[in-house]
Amino acid sequence: MNRNLPKIDLFQNNLFLKKKKSKMKIGVAPATPIFTGSTIVENPEVTVVQYNEAHLTEKILRGLDCLPAPDGKVTWYDVRGLSDVPLVEHLGKTFGVHPLAIEDILHTQQRPKWDDYENGVFIIVRALRHESKVPLGEVIVEQVSFYIEKNVVLTFQEDTHDLFRAVRERLARGQGKGRQKGSDYLTYALLDCIVDDYIALLDHTEDAAEVVENQILTQFNPSVRSDIYKLKRQISEIRRIVVPMRDVVGRLSREEGEIIDPTNHIYTRDLYDHIVRVIESVENQRDMLTNLDELYNAEVANRANHVMKVLTIVSAIFIPLTFIVGVYGTNFKYVPELEFHNAYFVMWLVMLFIVIAQLIFFRWKKWL
Amino acid sequence: MNRNLPKIDLFQNNLFLKKKKSKMKIGVAPATPIFTGSTIVENPEVTVVQYNEAHLTEKILRGLDCLPAPDGKVTWYDVRGLSDVPLVEHLGKTFGVHPLAIEDILHTQQRPKWDDYENGVFIIVRALRHESKVPLGEVIVEQVSFYIEKNVVLTFQEDTHDLFRAVRERLARGQGKGRQKGSDYLTYALLDCIVDDYIALLDHTEDAAEVVENQILTQFNPSVRSDIYKLKRQISEIRRIVVPMRDVVGRLSREEGEIIDPTNHIYTRDLYDHIVRVIESVENQRDMLTNLDELYNAEVANRANHVMKVLTIVSAIFIPLTFIVGVYGTNFKYVPELEFHNAYFVMWLVMLFIVIAQLIFFRWKKWL
Amino acid sequence: MNRNLPKIDLFQNNLFLKKKKSKMKIGVAPATPIFTGSTIVENPEVTVVQYNEAHLTEKILRGLDCLPAPDGKVTWYDVRGLSDVPLVEHLGKTFGVHPLAIEDILHTQQRPKWDDYENGVFIIVRALRHESKVPLGEVIVEQVSFYIEKNVVLTFQEDTHDLFRAVRERLARGQGKGRQKGSDYLTYALLDCIVDDYIALLDHTEDAAEVVENQILTQFNPSVRSDIYKLKRQISEIRRIVVPMRDVVGRLSREEGEIIDPTNHIYTRDLYDHIVRVIESVENQRDMLTNLDELYNAEVANRANHVMKVLTIVSAIFIPLTFIVGVYGTNFKYVPELEFHNAYFVMWLVMLFIVIAQLIFFRWKKWL
Amino acid sequence: MNRNLPKIDLFQNNLFLKKKKSKMKIGVAPATPIFTGSTIVENPEVTVVQYNEAHLTEKILRGLDCLPAPDGKVTWYDVRGLSDVPLVEHLGKTFGVHPLAIEDILHTQQRPKWDDYENGVFIIVRALRHESKVPLGEVIVEQVSFYIEKNVVLTFQEDTHDLFRAVRERLARGQGKGRQKGSDYLTYALLDCIVDDYIALLDHTEDAAEVVENQILTQFNPSVRSDIYKLKRQISEIRRIVVPMRDVVGRLSREEGEIIDPTNHIYTRDLYDHIVRVIESVENQRDMLTNLDELYNAEVANRANHVMKVLTIVSAIFIPLTFIVGVYGTNFKYVPELEFHNAYFVMWLVMLFIVIAQLIFFRWKKWL
Amino acid sequence: MNRNLPKIDLFQNNLFLKKKKSKMKIGVAPATPIFTGSTIVENPEVTVVQYNEAHLTEKILRGLDCLPAPDGKVTWYDVRGLSDVPLVEHLGKTFGVHPLAIEDILHTQQRPKWDDYENGVFIIVRALRHESKVPLGEVIVEQVSFYIEKNVVLTFQEDTHDLFRAVRERLARGQGKGRQKGSDYLTYALLDCIVDDYIALLDHTEDAAEVVENQILTQFNPSVRSDIYKLKRQISEIRRIVVPMRDVVGRLSREEGEIIDPTNHIYTRDLYDHIVRVIESVENQRDMLTNLDELYNAEVANRANHVMKVLTIVSAIFIPLTFIVGVYGTNFKYVPELEFHNAYFVMWLVMLFIVIAQLIFFRWKKWL
Repeated sequence: MNRNLPKIDLFQNNLFLKKKKSKMKIGVAPATPIFTGSTIVENPEVTVVQYNEAHLTEKILRGLDCLPAPDGKVTWYDVRGLSDVPLVEHLGKTFGVHPLAIEDILHTQQRPKWDDYENGVFIIVRALRHESKVPLGEVIVEQVSFYIEKNVVLTFQEDTHDLFRAVRERLARGQGKGRQKGSDYLTYALLDCIVDDYIALLDHTEDAAEVVENQILTQFNPSVRSDIYKLKRQISEIRRIVVPMRDVVGRLSREEGEIIDPTNHIYTRDLYDHIVRVIESVENQRDMLTNLDELYNAEVANRANHVMKVLTIVSAIFIPLTFIVGVYGTNFKYVPELEFHNAYFVMWLVMLFIVIAQLIFFRWKKWL
Repeated sequence: MNRNLPKIDLFQNNLFLKKKKSKMKIGVAPATPIFTGSTIVENPEVTVVQYNEAHLTEKILRGLDCLPAPDGKVTWYDVRGLSDVPLVEHLGKTFGVHPLAIEDILHTQQRPKWDDYENGVFIIVRALRHESKVPLGEVIVEQVSFYIEKNVVLTFQEDTHDLFRAVRERLARGQGKGRQKGSDYLTYALLDCIVDDYIALLDHTEDAAEVVENQILTQFNPSVRSDIYKLKRQISEIRRIVVPMRDVVGRLSREEGEIIDPTNHIYTRDLYDHIVRVIESVENQRDMLTNLDELYNAEVANRANHVMKVLTIVSAIFIPLTFIVGVYGTNFKYVPELEFHNAYFVMWLVMLFIVIAQLIFFRWKKWL
Repeated sequence: MNRNLPKIDLFQNNLFLKKKKSKMKIGVAPATPIFTGSTIVENPEVTVVQYNEAHLTEKILRGLDCLPAPDGKVTWYDVRGLSDVPLVEHLGKTFGVHPLAIEDILHTQQRPKWDDYENGVFIIVRALRHESKVPLGEVIVEQVSFYIEKNVVLTFQEDTHDLFRAVRERLARGQGKGRQKGSDYLTYALLDCIVDDYIALLDHTEDAAEVVENQILTQFNPSVRSDIYKLKRQISEIRRIVVPMRDVVGRLSREEGEIIDPTNHIYTRDLYDHIVRVIESVENQRDMLTNLDELYNAEVANRANHVMKVLTIVSAIFIPLTFIVGVYGTNFKYVPELEFHNAYFVMWLVMLFIVIAQLIFFRWKKWL
Repeated sequence: MNRNLPKIDLFQNNLFLKKKKSKMKIGVAPATPIFTGSTIVENPEVTVVQYNEAHLTEKILRGLDCLPAPDGKVTWYDVRGLSDVPLVEHLGKTFGVHPLAIEDILHTQQRPKWDDYENGVFIIVRALRHESKVPLGEVIVEQVSFYIEKNVVLTFQEDTHDLFRAVRERLARGQGKGRQKGSDYLTYALLDCIVDDYIALLDHTEDAAEVVENQILTQFNPSVRSDIYKLKRQISEIRRIVVPMRDVVGRLSREEGEIIDPTNHIYTRDLYDHIVRVIESVENQRDMLTNLDELYNAEVANRANHVMKVLTIVSAIFIPLTFIVGVYGTNFKYVPELEFHNAYFVMWLVMLFIVIAQLIFFRWKKWL
Repeated sequence: MNRNLPKIDLFQNNLFLKKKKSKMKIGVAPATPIFTGSTIVENPEVTVVQYNEAHLTEKILRGLDCLPAPDGKVTWYDVRGLSDVPLVEHLGKTFGVHPLAIEDILHTQQRPKWDDYENGVFIIVRALRHESKVPLGEVIVEQVSFYIEKNVVLTFQEDTHDLFRAVRERLARGQGKGRQKGSDYLTYALLDCIVDDYIALLDHTEDAAEVVENQILTQFNPSVRSDIYKLKRQISEIRRIVVPMRDVVGRLSREEGEIIDPTNHIYTRDLYDHIVRVIESVENQRDMLTNLDELYNAEVANRANHVMKVLTIVSAIFIPLTFIVGVYGTNFKYVPELEFHNAYFVMWLVMLFIVIAQLIFFRWKKWL
């Protein structure tokens, strides 16, 4: 419970999100391929994995001159980095991807969506990940596009992070059923990979929320309020990305056709269950942050109350006493009490009595 | 109304929930049976109950070497403890449970769900219970999986708590209609048992909320705010578990087929009514806690107000008086009043008059 | 507008609700007839009314030895008090009521519901009423069960309050169309009676809310906050009971069959309109109470503000003056001002000037 | 922006609403014609307008002895004032209005609704209007009932206000398509008239809300809070009346049959658009009032803060100074400073320095 | 992050909105063409663009005497300015626009809507734009009406702003597929243009919200609250306009018929995705503003707390000290301490000790 909450840098965060945010093509004709992302990758890698139950080959292409022959195997082209527009266009044209889909691949501010084209299925999703080097309040968002045909899967990632390494290694080791299945199962495995990252990210945000909770309940610090604010923004950002994923995955788990084999629905329904649980977790964390907010406000009010009680007690005790000593500081010609020998001590006794009476009063009020 | 609210230990609570929370299998191939729960049970018990209207036998199996013959009876295997993965797999394979279902049984972070497989129905629910030894703010969550075939019911509980004792005893005594019915009625009876535990738990949380209410309305204590927070989290946790149960039970009350006999719908609809009432009660308690929160905030504001009134009254009365005596404490060469013989007493009268005027003013303001 | 708000006793209220709340049968086989209500009625009355267009007889049965012959008339058995379980069971068995329905009649924590059985229709509703002797914040809830066959209506009330007197008298006087119609119209008339009580109760709660509103807007009293809280709880209790009634009445207004004659739908749709209006009124009162709550909070904040202004004005005026007189109370050997003959009066003038300047300042700030 | 907000008299308002509110017939047989409104009209007027494309006659009937012959024209009877129950009943029976509909006409607390009867369509709506003589926070609600047959429209208004004058004059002038169309178009024109009044009323409430907004943003006055409260209640009252109107108008715009000619749907859909816009405007004003409420609360908090800053600055400056002069007011036998000739002036310099230091501190804190 | 938030002038804003708001035609017969907008355009321009794949001509008409012949080309009439009612009517009649549609074109307070008429489709949308000369809190709203037939598109803009310049230029350059397609694709391109403006506007409001966020988190200024209020109103205004657009665009993306060619649905679905993203962005900004509001309130509470702490510390330290010096300012005949030679210095030591003790106490309380 005593982990440290990494310092969240909101402005760096904003800058990061901003880069992603607004460069939409305004006033440009539809279906014009322009890259609008912010991550410039000099020499994008294209990893090609070809497999059937018996064999698997994995190559990294630098150019697109000689694409491997299909050979009846499943072929997966994984492009990491989109700033090389001609490469994306060339690959797209080779497999007959519709120009509007190519535009969407390059225009990295899409909502998650599912589009049916004549020859294949085009899916856009957004991957989220947490990296140790970025502040905790930040999310790294990456658009990942899928183009799926009978035995071909094209994936387009926005940056060079190797999102799908686990899947590739599993395929290479021949683990699971992946090698016996087609491009639809591969799509499922890749999406599953992305959803796993959502879960890992939500574990991080939940940890951060618990650190905040701990700070409010034990060593209260007013500045924790801006952490709550940042976490709320982050969760609301995650929510905006995750909720439309449900539709895409739900579509995958209901679709039947040449490309999507319904016998795999048992797996895609499982994936759908996962994404539903992710959304529930997001809603839960939103609730938790709202509750933390209220707890924080109540705590601030309590503290204000406490400060005021201290002020009131000090004032209520000493102001009357100051008045009394003021009375005997007057220079009237005739003040009888001043003449008595022990009057000074009597005054102290009277004041002591007043203080005790007040302390009893404050005790009774439960202020002490 | 004077019951004591057991001390709620949030952090212990968090630790408990955390154990359940996050150990999801990330980067592992689908349908791999790995136990992800936190409750390690050394030697899980398998209780086998076999019955028809005339006979009932009950055995505890330690191994799975000799399973009892079906004999046309209903056979119920109740596994308590999931950490022995081979046992679960062996039992699953014996009855043809799908590998994905076996994975879900072992992976104890599932949402409640209903899956139809070729030979049977697979149900996952989450049991909740309150135990006297755990702090009131805590909930013990346990995943319970059902696999139902024509005359066989397999149940998999996460820990050794004997959740279904009441059902077993009723069957043994031959009470109710249980003995004349098949595996669907048994499933209904077992789910009814779990829903009864929800109701018992909600009675506990409602009692706790009423203790909090009592504390706010009578002996106000600012620290009660964190109790409200904890109860809110608890109710929101319960809600997250109970709401998807409605879908599962609703499915049971509509399903018709080889396994589920529609003549039992009269019972399952009753169960559905119960779960709807449970959800209404959860919503009601959420509302109540929100209202308590507002009541608490209003009370804190009132108290702050009251403290400030005391401060204002003391200051308003004594600060002017202190000024007056200050005036006659000045050392001016010529202050006419100081010369009058009874000036000191006149000053007291004037001050008395001021105090009375102020008291009347405060009375009129309803501050006293 | 000067009516007195009867003192609301929350705890008595809670105790009352508690009695109703939790005695659910846990761990008992389904369809076991156990009375779980709290109102023990020693000798329940069974009023039998038999009528056709020409004749009407009304009897009070103490036992069930000789039930009247049907004679082609409509027969209505009205049981008031459920603690005599054998009587309820006997009556139920005589008319072929399903054991699950008998269980529901006796188990007085049901949600309003509509169940079709083979021979008849079984309806559970909850009557609400306000009695002058109970505190205003309280509601008397009573479960009323209906079993309707072709020419027979059985009603089971939880306590001895004569809920349906108006209907009985109207039947006896031959007013309205009641005497020419069958058991479905009687059911409609009885439910209409219950909905009329809802409306009367909501008029009471609205009056109470208006008294609270008046108190906030005119003679503000901080304790009014707990009245708002109690009214909110009461309205939320009423809402929980009234909303599911809509489904029951809606079902009645759509049902067609042997028992429910569709020509009466013109009446039941009217009843449905009433219940919709009741729900709208409940929602409206919830809104109103939320608004009152906000008004209360704003008022408390204003009052705190006002108290603080008084404190600030008194302090700001007298603290500087006290400083000035303090200056001339110092015993320095050489203080030139003390020597001037009229210095004392000059000091008064200076202080007067300061006070006037401050009063102008506060006036300008709109604090006075 | 400097319009005056007419003084809103809540209690008068309440009394007005109360008259409308609760006189529901409790314990009375259904379909009994009793007038439950509050507006007693001594001699209700019945205006009869008869027209076809060529001719139009308009008469005011005092009795119902000689109703005009239909002559194949459209005949519109407009009754203003419902306290003359026999007149309403007579007219109703003449045109075969169902007794339940007559009851609803007289029972002026109905929700807007649409009922199909054998010979005609029965519609109840509620007209709202603002009159300059009533306080701005108040709404005049009037139930208007329509009974529509092939060539006959009966309208029943609750008071004598001539709601439909504009329509009558347009018919007389032969403007628009009214004269060429049947009773359905007339109904549309009359409802359009009522919806126009909604829009006019909402313009008034929006103006009032803007006056309140102006008062909060410029010359803040705490009492503005009760105006927000009253406007909120008013908008919520309007909403309750307007929302069910959408269903009635929606029905009109979809209905096809002997009475409602589908070629007029182009007009009724336009009316439906209007009512949707009215509802959007109501929702918008609710939002606006909620925002105003929050703005008000923020403003009150800011002002409290400001008052406290003034108090703190005055106290922080003068309390230390008073202490210093107090020190030199002590009567110790040996206080070295008192002996120095210019000590008094040194004290003033020290105090001046303290004040300047504090002013710099407060400036740095941005409190000045 | 250091951009300046342009000064938002609410009242000018209100005046602007007001002009748009309320001039609805009350008491006027339906389908009467009256211009109700506020933007008077002296000589409205009508731009006519005629094109097919090979040729494109563009003319500006001042009168409507000689309309160009269709020639099998797509003809687009773009009217900018609606105050010339006869021109609009003339154009409408020429193309057989229904009188109700002409009324809606001129009556510029319509909701976005889609109406099918016999010969064509009539669409009303509302364009939003941000101009650098208007304050940031303001939105310029303009109603744009479309009338679409097989090869003709009429557009009616409320003011002279050249909304569709980008489309016209693209057509002229022959960029994109516009020239090969019919009037439905043109409609799509024009709506796309309007939606692009929404996105640009939302980027502006998001920037403004971020400036406010920055001000709250760094250089707090209480007056920022009214900026939040204004942004909230603006977003709620935008939302009211954008949400019904979804229905219109959704309709376009599903419609099939003579005018709308389903092969263009691939484009209109893309437009639909855009509008969905716009709505998500609006919801997101609403959330963000609500969060900012809460952050602001928490900040104000913290600052109040801080002010109070300063007051309490100053008072708590000096009030007791003032009391002590007051004690030795009394004129009692016998005060033993006064006689001791070093009593004055002892008093200073005692007071120093008290101050140090208090500072330690405040430190421990974390107030310093």
